[in-house]
Amino acid sequence: MADKAQLQEAIKTQGEVVRKLKSEKASKEQIDEEVAKLLQLKAQLGGDEGKHVFVLKTAKGTRDYNPKQMAIREKVFSIIISCFKRHGAETIDTPVFELKETLTGKYGEDSKLIYDLKDQGGELLSLRYDLTVPFARYLALNKITNIKRYHIAKVYRRDNPAMTRGRYREFYQCDFDIAGQYDAMIPDAECLKIVYEILNELDLGDFRIKVNDRRILDGMFAVCGVPDEKFRTICSTVDKLDKMAWEDVKKEMVNEKGLSEDVADRIGEYVSMQGGQDLAERLLQDPKLSQNKQAFAGLTDMKLLFSYLELFQVTDKVVFDLSLARGLDYYTGVIYEAILSQTIPASVSTPAEQNGADEAGVSVGSVAGGGRYDGLVGMFDPKGRKVPCVGVSIGIERIFSIMEQKAETSSEKVRTTETQVLVASAQKNLLEERLKLTSQLWNAGIKAEVLYKKNPKLLSQLQHCEETGIPLVAILGEQELKDGVVKLRNVASREEVDVPRADLVDEIKKRTL
Amino acid sequence: MADKAQLQEAIKTQGEVVRKLKSEKASKEQIDEEVAKLLQLKAQLGGDEGKHVFVLKTAKGTRDYNPKQMAIREKVFSIIISCFKRHGAETIDTPVFELKETLTGKYGEDSKLIYDLKDQGGELLSLRYDLTVPFARYLALNKITNIKRYHIAKVYRRDNPAMTRGRYREFYQCDFDIAGQYDAMIPDAECLKIVYEILNELDLGDFRIKVNDRRILDGMFAVCGVPDEKFRTICSTVDKLDKMAWEDVKKEMVNEKGLSEDVADRIGEYVSMQGGQDLAERLLQDPKLSQNKQAFAGLTDMKLLFSYLELFQVTDKVVFDLSLARGLDYYTGVIYEAILSQTIPASVSTPAEQNGADEAGVSVGSVAGGGRYDGLVGMFDPKGRKVPCVGVSIGIERIFSIMEQKAETSSEKVRTTETQVLVASAQKNLLEERLKLTSQLWNAGIKAEVLYKKNPKLLSQLQHCEETGIPLVAILGEQELKDGVVKLRNVASREEVDVPRADLVDEIKKRTL
Repeated sequence: MADKAQLQEAIKTQGEVVRKLKSEKASKEQIDEEVAKLLQLKAQLGGDEGKHVFVLKTAKGTRDYNPKQMAIREKVFSIIISCFKRHGAETIDTPVFELKETLTGKYGEDSKLIYDLKDQGGELLSLRYDLTVPFARYLALNKITNIKRYHIAKVYRRDNPAMTRGRYREFYQCDFDIAGQYDAMIPDAECLKIVYEILNELDLGDFRIKVNDRRILDGMFAVCGVPDEKFRTICSTVDKLDKMAWEDVKKEMVNEKGLSEDVADRIGEYVSMQGGQDLAERLLQDPKLSQNKQAFAGLTDMKLLFSYLELFQVTDKVVFDLSLARGLDYYTGVIYEAILSQTIPASVSTPAEQNGADEAGVSVGSVAGGGRYDGLVGMFDPKGRKVPCVGVSIGIERIFSIMEQKAETSSEKVRTTETQVLVASAQKNLLEERLKLTSQLWNAGIKAEVLYKKNPKLLSQLQHCEETGIPLVAILGEQELKDGVVKLRNVASREEVDVPRADLVDEIKKRTL
Repeated sequence: MADKAQLQEAIKTQGEVVRKLKSEKASKEQIDEEVAKLLQLKAQLGGDEGKHVFVLKTAKGTRDYNPKQMAIREKVFSIIISCFKRHGAETIDTPVFELKETLTGKYGEDSKLIYDLKDQGGELLSLRYDLTVPFARYLALNKITNIKRYHIAKVYRRDNPAMTRGRYREFYQCDFDIAGQYDAMIPDAECLKIVYEILNELDLGDFRIKVNDRRILDGMFAVCGVPDEKFRTICSTVDKLDKMAWEDVKKEMVNEKGLSEDVADRIGEYVSMQGGQDLAERLLQDPKLSQNKQAFAGLTDMKLLFSYLELFQVTDKVVFDLSLARGLDYYTGVIYEAILSQTIPASVSTPAEQNGADEAGVSVGSVAGGGRYDGLVGMFDPKGRKVPCVGVSIGIERIFSIMEQKAETSSEKVRTTETQVLVASAQKNLLEERLKLTSQLWNAGIKAEVLYKKNPKLLSQLQHCEETGIPLVAILGEQELKDGVVKLRNVASREEVDVPRADLVDEIKKRTL
């Protein structure tokens, strides 16, 4: 009974949390989560008394897609897939889970965010964390040394969700990668061209693509006097420059990571640099940096990359930015990240999400990123054979969030079906005739619906068309049956004409091109 | 060291298992599995000596899709989705995992096949087992009382895989369901029409759709004298009639389930009956069966169903079969299952899979199934509000298996890209010109490729086209650049013509319609 008292106390406290959040007008998401906790507590108490309360929800950090959201999702996918196909890519698919060991040692600190499956006897499995590691595993397993492929699928991360900003625990990635031994920077340039094309076509407003190179970063660290063993950890501090001011980043380097002020200041000079081909050329003249083998190779490639980007006419959006330092362990060369200039209106972001955001709203942050990873496939190959790879991943959920908000504020209605015609009747006892005509239309490839009622009212049939955007109604009555015609009605204009049964299919096709 | 000796012994034994399987020419799948076990044992031993052997494979019962398989998969999906859209369906998506509790109590004995996620702190989660339960959860959560939707996604079952027959642990389901309170049997008939259309269009040879009704089964059991509490278990014995002879089914009923011979024989009479509307009418005259309320309701609906199927012109493939008894707990009314007449050639099925198969090969079994489940949504609704539902699930993996085998034996080459033109050159130092032209083509919406080499040979460029089925080559040379033209080559006919740069896009579009 002590347990029960404790539980009741916990329910009381949790009830107050929920009330407080509601009074503060916290986000629906936050409230829902606390309500779920409350219901679970109540369920435990209920269980004590033999009454079970089932909590009706999706798993934390996940969401359903309703038909409207699916219509938007399909539109976004179709733009992205068209682009990938325009660039000659094939597609593959891999299982949602991999042997746990396949993922081990690929993600550095982020490994703690991997979902493991329960050991139910048999292999130890984990849900995939990205599509890049399964791709490398696929190449090694099938001994493939060159391929250009895209892969669109869900990945899983036990991260802290921020759903209004499009950060989920289950989310889509759209990856495009080029594997193979090729001449320098040509596939790398194509990846950037692809990001440029997709962000342009999605029409999400202005954007920038930052580019850097792991070798330039490493060379820069060496030249500044960072000890070898601190490269990775300093790299992850530099990575925070898009969210933190230089002073705070410097503080972290000095106080937490143990760099001297001098070293930090030298890094500070480099990471404030942004430019294009000119910056690569200037740094190649930098007496210290150009002496470093790694940096020299990176800068030479950067110069070459920009010459190809010039030919692809995308340099207006691409910036060589020495502060870009992507977190994943497996990158070995060029790295890049695309950022939208647009922000999500403050009204739809939660207070917790507004840290560090300007008053106008929350930056949606990176919507695409990638780079070169020449060593990853070799980690899977029994003989360590390397397959050079470069790729890009489009962060589709943030794009969905923006498109959904756009659709909500727009007056244009999103259709969720493609039905061309509803087969209807104004009179009773014509169900069989309606079904027969509908079946004929289906057989002719027309997208047709019929209400599942014996004797529906004409008004409710017309309302169904208005609500779902069906443009045409084929109306049957005794007279029409006698005359061998169908009354075809345009829902928008309310015009009606009699169409001979034999011409109906063609007439519908003509009107719904 | 004792452990090590044991391990070495185990490796020796396992090595013999592998050798034996190879000498017996067992299936690749079986051998691979035993080899994997062997490698894992060796890895354990290796770990002792500081040498780690990584096992490179996908998780048991799962597979990758290579580009050719994806091309087939996309073709199958496109046929199925077209059909669903022709019938006015919307689409939704749900997360790959649900709260464990959401799946509890929905699948009867099969619940042991559910994949659970590891408890990493937080909610207890399971991978979805089908798309029907998440659909019902979605309806209850969003208080939706009518919708016609399709959902194509992967589901997960820890079943015994039989991969050559298309039985995997991760597999696609393509579900179409109609939820809502409607007049009897109209949506049910549309589901059957959809199965008919899809199997016809997939062109998989002859098929049959068996139909029955839970209420007829229950009524039949009551009339035959089966005690109420044995309905479900006898039902699952009846379900085996498609794999076992009546004598064996009867034996199980009498010896294992404790029915008297009399009762079993009475069941035997009914379950041997097959027919159409006529059979429903005849059974409505059956003095005993027609007195049973459940059976009477089921038979009346069956008669009505067939009258609609007649209007839909699908009765040539639909059989009212009293032996059909689908396993899932949630069905409440009409049930159905589609079976292909075609078999998989014996050569590609493994010995273990050939149990009970005729000599000609293994029957692929059911490729679609479904039924009415009027109570499932109510199980999720806090107030138990019911939403009547009927639906069908297409078992796509078996269809993939058949299509892949077809593609392998066919001489027609499956293209895995849609590239229209390769931008090539016969001369050196034209990389920049090639990239510039390729970029122009991309910008004009042409699907174009270029080899990632500075100076590729013309022959290797032409070979790339032959191998991947690219129909056109746009060849650049000094002379062409001077003349402002491109040499457009038809790969198949080897014909070449000079096309002015300004006309190139139109010419490529015209030739690759």
